[in-house]
Amino acid sequence: MKNHRNFDQRKEENDDKLSSIIYGRNPVLELLKSQKRAVNKILISKTARGSAVSEIISIAKQRGISLHFVFGEKLDQISENSQGIAAEVSAIEYIEIEDLIKKSKQNPKPLLVLLDGISDPHNLGAIIRNCAVFGADGAIIPKWRAAGVNETVAKTSAGAVEYVPISRVSNLNNAIGLLKKSGFWIAGAQNGEKKSQSIVNLSFPFPLAIIIGSEGGGLHRITKESCDYIVSIPQQSEISSLNAACAAAILLYEVSKLR
Amino acid sequence: MKNHRNFDQRKEENDDKLSSIIYGRNPVLELLKSQKRAVNKILISKTARGSAVSEIISIAKQRGISLHFVFGEKLDQISENSQGIAAEVSAIEYIEIEDLIKKSKQNPKPLLVLLDGISDPHNLGAIIRNCAVFGADGAIIPKWRAAGVNETVAKTSAGAVEYVPISRVSNLNNAIGLLKKSGFWIAGAQNGEKKSQSIVNLSFPFPLAIIIGSEGGGLHRITKESCDYIVSIPQQSEISSLNAACAAAILLYEVSKLR
Repeated sequence: MKNHRNFDQRKEENDDKLSSIIYGRNPVLELLKSQKRAVNKILISKTARGSAVSEIISIAKQRGISLHFVFGEKLDQISENSQGIAAEVSAIEYIEIEDLIKKSKQNPKPLLVLLDGISDPHNLGAIIRNCAVFGADGAIIPKWRAAGVNETVAKTSAGAVEYVPISRVSNLNNAIGLLKKSGFWIAGAQNGEKKSQSIVNLSFPFPLAIIIGSEGGGLHRITKESCDYIVSIPQQSEISSLNAACAAAILLYEVSKLR
Repeated sequence: MKNHRNFDQRKEENDDKLSSIIYGRNPVLELLKSQKRAVNKILISKTARGSAVSEIISIAKQRGISLHFVFGEKLDQISENSQGIAAEVSAIEYIEIEDLIKKSKQNPKPLLVLLDGISDPHNLGAIIRNCAVFGADGAIIPKWRAAGVNETVAKTSAGAVEYVPISRVSNLNNAIGLLKKSGFWIAGAQNGEKKSQSIVNLSFPFPLAIIIGSEGGGLHRITKESCDYIVSIPQQSEISSLNAACAAAILLYEVSKLR
């Protein structure tokens, strides 16, 4: 709770540069379709009707964006041209992967985190928060079958989405290829693999990209095959496994000792 | 919303405060394997397939647990994350703190985890999961102003509530007193404290009780004053802080290296 309050406080203190309002039916629809910016919430006039409105509602529901049905006057206050629709977008803009790689290389020991199909927004938010805490240079997430940065992610990240550059890619394996060409070592985190190396005292090479697998299935086979290392976190017991965000925290903690 | 409505409905119908619903394939399988709780019945979607489902059916038949094959909609009502499986179980039984201490001492290096006001059930579940992964001997949670072990906690723990003994106490400071009398060292986790020691290469003494503070406020003042050590996790950056579950994961990971 306090974290959320702090996040909101911070937003207010910063004179609200971190969010903006998009209004009008087509602009909001385009905004949703482009998926380039995280939408915090959508305000819709209780009397708004039409195909664009239906489509906006349907996409918002799919993505878990919070919908607020309000009186038309509220939207008139935002703009007389609102057409009964307005969206609050967070300022996070996904960064192109080429730019993220270039940016990360300003760090003498570049560190990027790839997420292979994290679908729970709470986990995604917590992982981005871990990236901020341990100074990762950015995160790479897939466009499909994975959570994007929405309101829940922003909240769970306790504001870290504003600090950690995030790239959203159509194909994670192409991204891995690009990272390799740019000199990155690829370490996939997967417990229970025969060839895995324990992260304890492992001297990770840099530039380094760490891949965290999905909550249920771990790393995809193809992802695993493109890894230079498979690393694992030693457990005391195998009756349970680590949550993806906790696994990411431990990995980033160990790697940060070397940076 | 859905969960709460159905959970409450069910509670009313059964008038049975001692039962709860566990859903999801792995959680139900873990529940059956642990044999720690009586399973009243299992609901399975008529269309559910896969190795976990077959194993659940086979164990249930062996034990004479009643199996109900239902339409998927019925399970969707329980949770959209049911994965086609739900089990009705009696609630976890908290263990008395004296028994927990006695039990932990069977381990040559006893380790207990105290939670000082964790209010988010997702965090509580994830911390209990961390306890299972890193072999902590149990967790101690306060009765007041903190989350108890409910359905969400059980689900987030991915079944770990079945393996980790949990004691629920009226007063955390009395519990700390009792632990001290029993020879436990008390280490409170709090970043940003002047006297804190970094956990990196710290040789924690045993028997050890680690205290994790609440999501927003960290350790309470009185709790902090009864600690033998204040320990901190080194961060690369102070723009963000670790989520309570991720902090617990890192702490338990470091401590488990010494056990």
